[in-house]
Amino acid sequence: MKNINQQKTEVVVVGSIALDTITTPAAMRRDVLGGSVSFACVAASFFANVGMVGIVGTDFPEKYIRLLRRFGIDLSGLQREQGRTFRWSGVYEQDMDNRRTISTDLNVFAGFSPELPESYREAPFLFLANIAPDLQLKVLSQARSPRFTAADTMDLWIRTARDPLMEVISKVDMLLLNDSEARELSGESHLVKAAARLLEQGPRYVAIKKGQHGCMVLSEGDVFLMPAYPVPEVHDPTGAGDAFAGGMIGFLASSGRLNTAGVRRAMAAGTVAASFAVESFGLEKLARISRADIKQRGSEFMRMIRMPAA
Amino acid sequence: MKNINQQKTEVVVVGSIALDTITTPAAMRRDVLGGSVSFACVAASFFANVGMVGIVGTDFPEKYIRLLRRFGIDLSGLQREQGRTFRWSGVYEQDMDNRRTISTDLNVFAGFSPELPESYREAPFLFLANIAPDLQLKVLSQARSPRFTAADTMDLWIRTARDPLMEVISKVDMLLLNDSEARELSGESHLVKAAARLLEQGPRYVAIKKGQHGCMVLSEGDVFLMPAYPVPEVHDPTGAGDAFAGGMIGFLASSGRLNTAGVRRAMAAGTVAASFAVESFGLEKLARISRADIKQRGSEFMRMIRMPAA
Repeated sequence: MKNINQQKTEVVVVGSIALDTITTPAAMRRDVLGGSVSFACVAASFFANVGMVGIVGTDFPEKYIRLLRRFGIDLSGLQREQGRTFRWSGVYEQDMDNRRTISTDLNVFAGFSPELPESYREAPFLFLANIAPDLQLKVLSQARSPRFTAADTMDLWIRTARDPLMEVISKVDMLLLNDSEARELSGESHLVKAAARLLEQGPRYVAIKKGQHGCMVLSEGDVFLMPAYPVPEVHDPTGAGDAFAGGMIGFLASSGRLNTAGVRRAMAAGTVAASFAVESFGLEKLARISRADIKQRGSEFMRMIRMPAA
Repeated sequence: MKNINQQKTEVVVVGSIALDTITTPAAMRRDVLGGSVSFACVAASFFANVGMVGIVGTDFPEKYIRLLRRFGIDLSGLQREQGRTFRWSGVYEQDMDNRRTISTDLNVFAGFSPELPESYREAPFLFLANIAPDLQLKVLSQARSPRFTAADTMDLWIRTARDPLMEVISKVDMLLLNDSEARELSGESHLVKAAARLLEQGPRYVAIKKGQHGCMVLSEGDVFLMPAYPVPEVHDPTGAGDAFAGGMIGFLASSGRLNTAGVRRAMAAGTVAASFAVESFGLEKLARISRADIKQRGSEFMRMIRMPAA
């Protein structure tokens, strides 16, 4: 696809694109735009110029292409292949904390082989959203000395592809994962110990996502704890972790501060992006807000977590 | 009992004293000193001069009297009645988040009628730990214009004594309760909304305790969110909420800052006190630490939650 964005790509995100069918206690929606790369790119686009790498089938709705373009996302890395787009279907229980997967149809995603377009290869920031570690390694080998790389993962790869996953972890600047994944991958039930164990594998930062309970980031000699923004009404938690990661890396790219202080600020940006994402199905809410809304909620969140001087 | 503390009582705490029998996945202990007033007084004693109001039976071990005295707690309000001390027995499941009560024997506590000794009645800070709302009201009527009053409660009173509980809430400066209690009492599942609803009942502050997930404090126009200190090894969560409340009110008494900034700092002090409480059965760990340990962990915690300037 044609690159409609003439500005330099600052952040490249690689991951899945899916059409999600989601049931919550309040509603049900079919074929909503989802997938890790969709949420992460959209969230990052509030802060930086973003290039997407992913794959869709011939059935992928044009309206979603237009939606992604409206966020200014560079789609030169978006492959369109003969066949159907990846589809996922799931149900959230009453408290929205637990979800059950009803079906997963990989379709064209099963044959995904990510390729960074030439215009992406110099991008300073690279986020490897949740895909098979082998593919994450392939992308890493294509990038030309990025300034900062981050990778997410999931329980499936911890169980079925541990070796390539550990290789990914040894090569990135930041590992992101949720609390249960951190426990499973490290063998430690205490999250600070789990993060410390994973830090030994090579990354400078290990960020553990705890959903509505916030997040934690460990780096050498530094522990950061942050609550989540208390979203008044959660409509659909799908993609929250990807929006968090995307907002975080987009913010890092815009600030250029890659030290612990900069990462703390970036985590807050990610939290705010995720808080908007869960207020609607798919990307609906993120499509309705502006950078000013992000900034305003960011200031509100800063006031909510600020510890005054003694 | 004789007041061995010659200094003026700054904080009065009223609540239950129990001998707890606790089973965790790792260990089992019999007749450990517990009860809301024990934890709250000990935690507050790190920051201020504390007077206790409670009741024990003739079987109450002298070693626990000596322990409470070692913290400098004024025991003039401690009643000793013919009979057995209140006993509670419970089991914690693997994740320490859930506990089952095995038995509750009120014994002398069933006839508890709190009386503030004359030397306590001018105390500027009053904490009504979890006891029947009728008794909390009785204590409130005995106090002479305290500067700051706080009350805790439990699900039992929400279900069986709602009217007197609402009267307590309308009369105190701060209501403390845990997340499930806040939801039950307010009828709101979202915690910020629940706290806002309870704020309408009169208190200046509503503090919601979320255990290992931290706490939230609402006051008019202000929301404060704070994570919990990530305790490396939780041995026994009993009393954590009471230690939190005691540390909080003790800190408020020592700082004298009763505005939202002062309350935020006080919540951090409560968090640190609670983090030590859960590192052992009963008060064992709190008995081994000093003010310097509280201060050091407090500084560490401040670094963990600090959001750097933009």
